[in-house]
Amino acid sequence: MIIMMQPGATPSEIDNVVAAAQAKGWQTHLSADSGQTIIGLQGQGQPLDSFALGQMPGVQDVTAITQKFKLASRAFQPENTTFQIGDVTVGSGRLSIIAGPCSVESREQLLETARAVKAAGATFLRGGAYKPRSSPYSFQGMGEAGLKLLAEAREATGLPIVTEVMSPSKVALVAVYADVLQIGARNMQNFDLLNAVGRAHKPVLLKRGLSATIEDLLMAAEYILAHGNKRVMLCERGIRTFDTKFARNTFDINAIPLLKELTHLPVIADPSHAIGVRRHVASVTLAAVAAGADGLIIEVHPQPDQAASDGDQSLTPPQFAGLMTQVRAMAEAVGRTV
Amino acid sequence: MIIMMQPGATPSEIDNVVAAAQAKGWQTHLSADSGQTIIGLQGQGQPLDSFALGQMPGVQDVTAITQKFKLASRAFQPENTTFQIGDVTVGSGRLSIIAGPCSVESREQLLETARAVKAAGATFLRGGAYKPRSSPYSFQGMGEAGLKLLAEAREATGLPIVTEVMSPSKVALVAVYADVLQIGARNMQNFDLLNAVGRAHKPVLLKRGLSATIEDLLMAAEYILAHGNKRVMLCERGIRTFDTKFARNTFDINAIPLLKELTHLPVIADPSHAIGVRRHVASVTLAAVAAGADGLIIEVHPQPDQAASDGDQSLTPPQFAGLMTQVRAMAEAVGRTV
Amino acid sequence: MIIMMQPGATPSEIDNVVAAAQAKGWQTHLSADSGQTIIGLQGQGQPLDSFALGQMPGVQDVTAITQKFKLASRAFQPENTTFQIGDVTVGSGRLSIIAGPCSVESREQLLETARAVKAAGATFLRGGAYKPRSSPYSFQGMGEAGLKLLAEAREATGLPIVTEVMSPSKVALVAVYADVLQIGARNMQNFDLLNAVGRAHKPVLLKRGLSATIEDLLMAAEYILAHGNKRVMLCERGIRTFDTKFARNTFDINAIPLLKELTHLPVIADPSHAIGVRRHVASVTLAAVAAGADGLIIEVHPQPDQAASDGDQSLTPPQFAGLMTQVRAMAEAVGRTV
Amino acid sequence: MIIMMQPGATPSEIDNVVAAAQAKGWQTHLSADSGQTIIGLQGQGQPLDSFALGQMPGVQDVTAITQKFKLASRAFQPENTTFQIGDVTVGSGRLSIIAGPCSVESREQLLETARAVKAAGATFLRGGAYKPRSSPYSFQGMGEAGLKLLAEAREATGLPIVTEVMSPSKVALVAVYADVLQIGARNMQNFDLLNAVGRAHKPVLLKRGLSATIEDLLMAAEYILAHGNKRVMLCERGIRTFDTKFARNTFDINAIPLLKELTHLPVIADPSHAIGVRRHVASVTLAAVAAGADGLIIEVHPQPDQAASDGDQSLTPPQFAGLMTQVRAMAEAVGRTV
Repeated sequence: MIIMMQPGATPSEIDNVVAAAQAKGWQTHLSADSGQTIIGLQGQGQPLDSFALGQMPGVQDVTAITQKFKLASRAFQPENTTFQIGDVTVGSGRLSIIAGPCSVESREQLLETARAVKAAGATFLRGGAYKPRSSPYSFQGMGEAGLKLLAEAREATGLPIVTEVMSPSKVALVAVYADVLQIGARNMQNFDLLNAVGRAHKPVLLKRGLSATIEDLLMAAEYILAHGNKRVMLCERGIRTFDTKFARNTFDINAIPLLKELTHLPVIADPSHAIGVRRHVASVTLAAVAAGADGLIIEVHPQPDQAASDGDQSLTPPQFAGLMTQVRAMAEAVGRTV
Repeated sequence: MIIMMQPGATPSEIDNVVAAAQAKGWQTHLSADSGQTIIGLQGQGQPLDSFALGQMPGVQDVTAITQKFKLASRAFQPENTTFQIGDVTVGSGRLSIIAGPCSVESREQLLETARAVKAAGATFLRGGAYKPRSSPYSFQGMGEAGLKLLAEAREATGLPIVTEVMSPSKVALVAVYADVLQIGARNMQNFDLLNAVGRAHKPVLLKRGLSATIEDLLMAAEYILAHGNKRVMLCERGIRTFDTKFARNTFDINAIPLLKELTHLPVIADPSHAIGVRRHVASVTLAAVAAGADGLIIEVHPQPDQAASDGDQSLTPPQFAGLMTQVRAMAEAVGRTV
Repeated sequence: MIIMMQPGATPSEIDNVVAAAQAKGWQTHLSADSGQTIIGLQGQGQPLDSFALGQMPGVQDVTAITQKFKLASRAFQPENTTFQIGDVTVGSGRLSIIAGPCSVESREQLLETARAVKAAGATFLRGGAYKPRSSPYSFQGMGEAGLKLLAEAREATGLPIVTEVMSPSKVALVAVYADVLQIGARNMQNFDLLNAVGRAHKPVLLKRGLSATIEDLLMAAEYILAHGNKRVMLCERGIRTFDTKFARNTFDINAIPLLKELTHLPVIADPSHAIGVRRHVASVTLAAVAAGADGLIIEVHPQPDQAASDGDQSLTPPQFAGLMTQVRAMAEAVGRTV
Repeated sequence: MIIMMQPGATPSEIDNVVAAAQAKGWQTHLSADSGQTIIGLQGQGQPLDSFALGQMPGVQDVTAITQKFKLASRAFQPENTTFQIGDVTVGSGRLSIIAGPCSVESREQLLETARAVKAAGATFLRGGAYKPRSSPYSFQGMGEAGLKLLAEAREATGLPIVTEVMSPSKVALVAVYADVLQIGARNMQNFDLLNAVGRAHKPVLLKRGLSATIEDLLMAAEYILAHGNKRVMLCERGIRTFDTKFARNTFDINAIPLLKELTHLPVIADPSHAIGVRRHVASVTLAAVAAGADGLIIEVHPQPDQAASDGDQSLTPPQFAGLMTQVRAMAEAVGRTV
């Protein structure tokens, strides 16, 4: 970190800044530039809040010289993270395709969907047993009964299961049934939950919060990594902006190349939530693959109009099969496979 | 809810919409307007997703005729919610003044601050024992040791304690020590946590999420109310917008009159987080009182430059005392007391 | 438009609403639904402000039954707008590729770039002679001298010219030299300028404002169409959101399929401004084509590091040629040509 | 400006950066900090794009050491700008109160409003003769006939006139009738218009754009100042955010203390546009005065429900008179007068 003092900073203002840094265990290094004192920090001190430093008397500017995220950074690990789930290698040249209903509603609904998405080429089954809903009066999910149906669907199809966990106390239970633990957008900064999945022995799919910056997302991943779980997938699912008239969210396509540069972790796109309108899911899906996503998570329901949640953005199985044909062509155009 | 069909909607499209509504337990009522069929819903059906309905073939527009929040609404309870904590009546003409450090750091720091804010006129002591931090490498709070210091500070000053709880499994523990359970902005849609504090026997201070709409905030309160806890305070603490160069957040002053109209729950303003810069906290505080806030929550630290968190926005005790003098004059100008 | 009165609306409140609508030339049609009066409007009245109507005493909800944009809508014209510029048909299955420097800086710079982009497959040359800059101290463009260089480059390469006009009084002058008049993002709601280009006899490239909704963009196009100019291209160039740390703007990829559904006008993507970082322009370009864009506008400069503006997001000619190879493969994957 | 090179930057990368700076007329000054080279710039070079510099190979960070706005900054002029219009001193301890209809609609409407706001204590009359409307089908203003009515209202009441100018070519005409030239939010970055009012001999009221940052606003003011017009008032009128369900805009109350610190120019608040709902205008008005605004601009209409524009946010004359009573009490509470 570099702290630039104002031209007229007094010796005692400079001393205060030096003392503040040394109090956190940093070595300080002073230099002068055109009459302005510059304080450089070195060593292994405790984290400093650059905003706070910038508010100290006499300070003009504070420049951080390292990313806040360490374990998630390309500096820490230049090569891509890849890991095996079932017979799929996440983060490899082959796209991971996660598909299934928003909510698990019944054995029939789930098994029908699982078989259909498997036949169309999906490599994971998604389905929510615990549902975060903005209204307490909306369907909250089937709970453990839903988890059991997911396990049954895995038996029937061989597809590994991706499902959401909402509470630290449920991590152990969900991990019994699931192959991948999903953290929802609204829980992206539920730090106790991040710590809990960080200690779990299952891969994690971490969804970006509605107004989380890219740095926020990487810092949330850092919580999981710092607790020992290295198998983290990041998921861009659309952010909240000023325009919500025709689409539910704004898909941040820029985030895909930016994340691929900043971090070694695989990046999954969620076109269903990103636009929220069934007839436009295909366009966003193809764009995500074109931009370099490592995988997709797509909502599919046998009768979307009857779905307990998110039916308006769910594809029917035939629509999903049609989309997979397009995805294969797109993957080939950008040197990937499905 | 009113569903307007398109001019050329076919009888079967109309039937499908009627069937979808009836399947959720609603009675339907058809009328025609200029050749367009209008379907009105009545009764006590299950919640319908108007976005999904709007996607059904033949549907032109869907208009909800009731607020999504019920128990939180003025329609449900026209008069203001008030409740007693210690000798303060929250939601009355007298402002609730919550002050103290961001984090509990030591007995000396906490007791010194508690005595100072009490002397200056605060009616509650705030202090974090569990800290949600965007980085896993930042100070995470003292935990239960911090709660014990808070209880000791209450003994010493008589001030009721406001402190954050981050996890459902910690609610029982925190409730042993705290007088008010705070839900942080990043946990505003941590629904398991909302349910847990909804079942607790302590009042709740619910902070608005960084990009939560006013409706989202009221729906989060609805979770708490629906689980039986009627003592909920809402807190506006600034939202995330496109401009973060000179302030941490954008204080949504409009939210104060809007919330006072939409809900009977008390509304607290957090000027410290709202602007994030110590020397501007006073301006935002006065504006919040002028706009009709029922209370304030303000960060105070004896040595802000040494604070483990949020020092840049914390007032010193003398600054807080000076601000309280201004707040008294402002309260008088708008017919309130301190 | 449909106006739903509250259940307890008084006869005089209903009369007031009816009178307000009739005063604007609308015929009113009353019906009752579950005890609630509904007022439907018909005919050819003047525009009504639904927000204002919604504030009238006794009104519960106002539902617009038509899009605000008329001439720009698919309802008005179901088939795609296409038009010929030089030997290119904009809006056809063949992508329009607009490339060139942000600013015209010199004959050498412009001609070198023009020849290079032509060789790589561009079908239009872009270049700014009048530059809108956020600082009055930044380079403001060469003015008419720049326009003359653009005309010379067209002579040399045959590429039609796209260039920005910033003021109504300059439209006639710019139209002498340009083949397409560009309206910049900051002028998207400069209504006098929209009117002026609406009366010009040259096609228009209308860029979306930094925080313009999709509806705002279509209403801006409506100004141009309503003044008689039917040859309008819309341009998505990234919007302003809460995250600007790693990219200049947030490219709204959703806007591409949404606009293609809502309007018959061609949709051009501007990946250079959309992300603002040279090494990521390619990813965004491919995503835009995958999502269905009808064309691209890309900044190219022979020495980006010397550019008077936007050098950081400009490609070198070899980078642009490489990108065009990728664009051709992508276009083929989605059934288009270059 | 300070440019920090990466630890492993090569001599030729350093040379390139030095050359880029020197090419713009800057003197460079090199120093080394912990093995990292730091390049400081001095002198009177041309503006540099720090984003572009940051993209050059080997560069780690670029830190600007001065504000982009010069003439508008407190560094340039520490004391408040004040100026006389009629018998009012804008920017003094006495609040400037600008009131009147959104649009001039008729002699009766305007004169009735002018007399009423004068009687209630307003010190300026506002009224639009040229109206920027998002739809070409909405009322566009009376034009010069409206300007003449405004001049007549000034004759009748003595109130100076504030009215909008939308086009550079209309500045001379509007300046004949108006005392203050208003630049609307949608034209805040219409640079040719800013230049034109910069050359006019009338004070300017510059409204912040819907998504303009505080720095953008100050840079727009800089255009006017740099063209010789020193009499500029800044106006905060609400920004565009993710929540538009219950209010039209989000009033950025933080902007008031921030602007008062950053610039010497007077800051006016526009509560009418800031919230857009008549019954909440008073709360926002009082908050703005409490936060330190130098004046107010408020929409008043004798029959808001009949207004050609913005009726929903216009106060009636009695409502305005009532609000002025509250404003006087509020001004006194914060040491100002009306």
